Amino acid sequence: MLKQEINELLTRTGPGTPMGELFRRYWLPALLAEELPENDCPPVRIKILSERLIAFRDSDGRYGLIDEFCAHRGVSLWFGRSEEGGLRCAYHGWKYDVNGRCLEVPSEPEDSRFPQKVKLTSYPLVQVGGILWTYLGDPANQPELPEFEFVRVPSEQSYTSKRWQECNWLQALEGGIDSSHVSWLHSDGLKNDPLFKGTKGNEYNMADMKPFFEVVEVDGGLFIGARRNAEDGRYYWRITPWVMPSFTMIPPRGNHPVHGHLWVPIDDENCWVFTFDYHSDRPLTPDELAAMHAGHGVHNEYVPGTYRPLQNKDNDYMMDRQAQRRGETFSGVKGIAMQDASLQESMGPIVDRTKERLVSTDAGIIKARQKLRKAAEALRDDGATPPGVDAAHHRVRSASVLVPKEEAFIDAAREALAVTPGVKHASV
Amino acid sequence: MLKQEINELLTRTGPGTPMGELFRRYWLPALLAEELPENDCPPVRIKILSERLIAFRDSDGRYGLIDEFCAHRGVSLWFGRSEEGGLRCAYHGWKYDVNGRCLEVPSEPEDSRFPQKVKLTSYPLVQVGGILWTYLGDPANQPELPEFEFVRVPSEQSYTSKRWQECNWLQALEGGIDSSHVSWLHSDGLKNDPLFKGTKGNEYNMADMKPFFEVVEVDGGLFIGARRNAEDGRYYWRITPWVMPSFTMIPPRGNHPVHGHLWVPIDDENCWVFTFDYHSDRPLTPDELAAMHAGHGVHNEYVPGTYRPLQNKDNDYMMDRQAQRRGETFSGVKGIAMQDASLQESMGPIVDRTKERLVSTDAGIIKARQKLRKAAEALRDDGATPPGVDAAHHRVRSASVLVPKEEAFIDAAREALAVTPGVKHASV
Amino acid sequence: MLKQEINELLTRTGPGTPMGELFRRYWLPALLAEELPENDCPPVRIKILSERLIAFRDSDGRYGLIDEFCAHRGVSLWFGRSEEGGLRCAYHGWKYDVNGRCLEVPSEPEDSRFPQKVKLTSYPLVQVGGILWTYLGDPANQPELPEFEFVRVPSEQSYTSKRWQECNWLQALEGGIDSSHVSWLHSDGLKNDPLFKGTKGNEYNMADMKPFFEVVEVDGGLFIGARRNAEDGRYYWRITPWVMPSFTMIPPRGNHPVHGHLWVPIDDENCWVFTFDYHSDRPLTPDELAAMHAGHGVHNEYVPGTYRPLQNKDNDYMMDRQAQRRGETFSGVKGIAMQDASLQESMGPIVDRTKERLVSTDAGIIKARQKLRKAAEALRDDGATPPGVDAAHHRVRSASVLVPKEEAFIDAAREALAVTPGVKHASV
Repeated sequence: MLKQEINELLTRTGPGTPMGELFRRYWLPALLAEELPENDCPPVRIKILSERLIAFRDSDGRYGLIDEFCAHRGVSLWFGRSEEGGLRCAYHGWKYDVNGRCLEVPSEPEDSRFPQKVKLTSYPLVQVGGILWTYLGDPANQPELPEFEFVRVPSEQSYTSKRWQECNWLQALEGGIDSSHVSWLHSDGLKNDPLFKGTKGNEYNMADMKPFFEVVEVDGGLFIGARRNAEDGRYYWRITPWVMPSFTMIPPRGNHPVHGHLWVPIDDENCWVFTFDYHSDRPLTPDELAAMHAGHGVHNEYVPGTYRPLQNKDNDYMMDRQAQRRGETFSGVKGIAMQDASLQESMGPIVDRTKERLVSTDAGIIKARQKLRKAAEALRDDGATPPGVDAAHHRVRSASVLVPKEEAFIDAAREALAVTPGVKHASV
Repeated sequence: MLKQEINELLTRTGPGTPMGELFRRYWLPALLAEELPENDCPPVRIKILSERLIAFRDSDGRYGLIDEFCAHRGVSLWFGRSEEGGLRCAYHGWKYDVNGRCLEVPSEPEDSRFPQKVKLTSYPLVQVGGILWTYLGDPANQPELPEFEFVRVPSEQSYTSKRWQECNWLQALEGGIDSSHVSWLHSDGLKNDPLFKGTKGNEYNMADMKPFFEVVEVDGGLFIGARRNAEDGRYYWRITPWVMPSFTMIPPRGNHPVHGHLWVPIDDENCWVFTFDYHSDRPLTPDELAAMHAGHGVHNEYVPGTYRPLQNKDNDYMMDRQAQRRGETFSGVKGIAMQDASLQESMGPIVDRTKERLVSTDAGIIKARQKLRKAAEALRDDGATPPGVDAAHHRVRSASVLVPKEEAFIDAAREALAVTPGVKHASV
Repeated sequence: MLKQEINELLTRTGPGTPMGELFRRYWLPALLAEELPENDCPPVRIKILSERLIAFRDSDGRYGLIDEFCAHRGVSLWFGRSEEGGLRCAYHGWKYDVNGRCLEVPSEPEDSRFPQKVKLTSYPLVQVGGILWTYLGDPANQPELPEFEFVRVPSEQSYTSKRWQECNWLQALEGGIDSSHVSWLHSDGLKNDPLFKGTKGNEYNMADMKPFFEVVEVDGGLFIGARRNAEDGRYYWRITPWVMPSFTMIPPRGNHPVHGHLWVPIDDENCWVFTFDYHSDRPLTPDELAAMHAGHGVHNEYVPGTYRPLQNKDNDYMMDRQAQRRGETFSGVKGIAMQDASLQESMGPIVDRTKERLVSTDAGIIKARQKLRKAAEALRDDGATPPGVDAAHHRVRSASVLVPKEEAFIDAAREALAVTPGVKHASV
């Protein structure tokens, strides 16, 4: 249970808010690289941290992320055309480069110095992996580029999708660091999903419905361990890393690719979920890629031409009560991603955390909130650089491991939780 | 004409409002019994008096009406499954009984006493007739169950439907106690509707377009008499009872079933209209039932899979100007129910009563408002139990009678206005 | 760049606002005459200056524009029927004449004087040309009827359409007095549109992309001259008149009809655009009329049964990126009207003028705002009659002329800028 003012602090991310300032210290996913597929392709409107921006790729392949609206009279640059080194507004032909600098005001005399005085807000936009990343903060504080393993492995080993989720970012993130719901909500996925099924780990998962949670704080975030009974004096540990502010990974299963998420606030009542699958030591197989494209695993199907899920609140997520009754799905909703999204959206745009009743399995959520709050307040009050900004903190992995009962998971799995390029994830 | 503050008082029914507290002293229709057709059927989301609730029917057939949102982290229990004596949340498997008590928190140890400390808001949900009734007030004040005749006659004598109306409850109710509009708005129905047409009373109705209204206050509400000329030194009286806060009955016509309504606030800009037809001394005929299912009389057709009328404000109620011009309908809208709903919704979500100009035929409306206001203020200021709570007040009937000119309708029809089980309505 | 309070002053037009009071001094287009095509035809709901009204045409052909809502209990008179000299409410049959006077309250005694005391707000509604005009101000100040040439020429010489635009009136008007965008946004239209193409003037237009602007203030508004280079020691001047508060005309092209607009606030976030084409000395040809009906020139196609453009913000104006890339359109949007509307709507419901960067080509916009502000303040502070109210100010024309370099356009074109009935527009 949170006080209302803490709930406000954690959920509001517009310009000038404490959590908004916190997010503005990190590189954040802005778009998929596929959204700007070639030089001079159509620009793309995006909103991030409540700022409306336009992303484009110029004639030389440079990426730009600038204010959506022309400096002149405020029309959307989405109607513009990228050409000859800049994005030209459709109204009077004003032209901007990827840094938001005005290159040309056609109505002005040839020798006018006016264009040089015009500059739109701009942010860096950089491809790392399948994602175009941006940084919305003060350039003086700009950190190194992201080093999450899923964007650093060869591209044939990794796949990323994104989807629009119609609720505040925090309740979405909280779903990602709460692995206790998997045995219930996703029980069908453990049995049937081509990207989840058929592992020894799943058997442990379903056999022990009362996992014990242990949370270890590290510099950049948390490791959240869920302990279940195994045989031979061992526990089965599923370990979920959370890196500030919103990176999580699902612990691996057998030889399946590993899944994870990055949550990015669109505004206070919507977020983007960037969802990835990668394998640390081999390419994804054609079957795996086909399953991801088809919306299996943590991916989903779309309303054609959009990144909105095909199953959404307007169609009650295509809830199938008969399938629920027959036990084919637990909630009646099909697919792991939409099972999560449907419940998180059902909490309302921003869940009222003054009413919640947390239990021991929510230990990860509690710790993450504390760490976010502490970091936001320290930044606001003392200008303190928040944890996880340093790209070194990105080099973490999730793991699923069997550990002798007497050992602490964080010691036993220390090596498994760090990225060792080319070495396979620790997975049961 | 009302002062704005009185309009506010009468129209706002959320928790803590004077009128909301008044409604919380009565049994109210929450759902049709058909919405929870069998044990462990899918739960149903409803909103009533601005509270979001979930209704379900457990494995033993007990009905429950509880807070829509799980006590744990606030997801909607609509995604849950009713099974083995309770409703289980789809997220982490928390389970609740029909009284909102938490039966199980699967992640907790077997011997944990935690679940016993968790309880959701719950209200009684009881079937009487074709309706599931609830009571949202303090259990200490819970009255006897409803005794309206339409829910007490054998089920083959009664039929109830419901529809969503997109305006405040009070302007809908006011339509129900205003019988002066019938000769205008519903003139086509008197001629053609299979559940209205072909009676001697309709002839009086259409022959005298200037009815005189007389309103008699009784303990539980009002009797509103509309007097029209008849022959042989008599008047034709149509008498409409209103029982606090929102029960009305249309005066009967010949041997047709009798119609009536109960209006229930969803929130301040929407209401449920529960609409019934019954006959006091015989089963409804197959033809009558077929007409009701087809949306005749006071019933209506639906957007498939919903209780929203097929004719609604998004399609201008399927207004047919040609039919209006030819005189087939007076307003261009088809059907008695939608003729009322279309006009009541056209007033806006909450009509501005500071601008109205009431006339003598609005005497019933004026008296009803006064009685509602007085009761709400007496409850707020003195805790006074409001009129009509006692189920004895439910045992009223509407009537249409011929009365010698020198007699008062309330005396002449005293017997006709009381329920005498098995005895036919007084009807012309 | 405007201060926010000036932006508010200029954009808010509801009752009691300074700009709203200004608009209430002028005759304004309320409907197309085609919307009330015959006596006793269906009434039409309109909103204008944030007032909800109903327009109708009675049995004798008189036009009425009255409060949308019945004085009795507030239902919409849109459901009413025009018959026997008045509009009868569908609820209880109250009847109103074109002046909003209540003619009949059927429930009242024959000799009741009550109806005489009931009167709805009403405004004059007068056909001049293809438009029904209204005046929402104090009758004491009502000016003469409009004398714009397009409504005064014989009807076969003129054509008017209207469309709903989803933004504040001022940013729409500003598009109309800004002719510098034509060479960019509408470059395809100059080449291909059947109502624009193939003139010598267009060649000047496209050859000189840096027009010089000169604005001349006159009593009723402005003449905005855009000067481009021509041959033989002359300039090509395109001259746009603006008559207070919202009448503009596009300078003519060759022998094409002349186009123009009148913008009327619906409320602060929507406006009606009345769009006309006329020829001063000949009937419009069948080909021209066919082109207008098909949505060419400054007209557009519609969502069937409405005045909403078929291309609208819900379908991204049917943006065609391939056509944009091939250079067939500059913004990807088809049609001159929707090219304007799409950009103006993209600014948001009310553009934030504190952020704009105006340039010399915006001189007309700057002057128009100053004149509007001055007039609104003078009316508010001193009750001063605003400019352009006198119908004499309506008798202006746009013109496109070749003028020797040493002459001022306003002197050289003085005759061309005044209406001379039957004499052709000055056009290149």
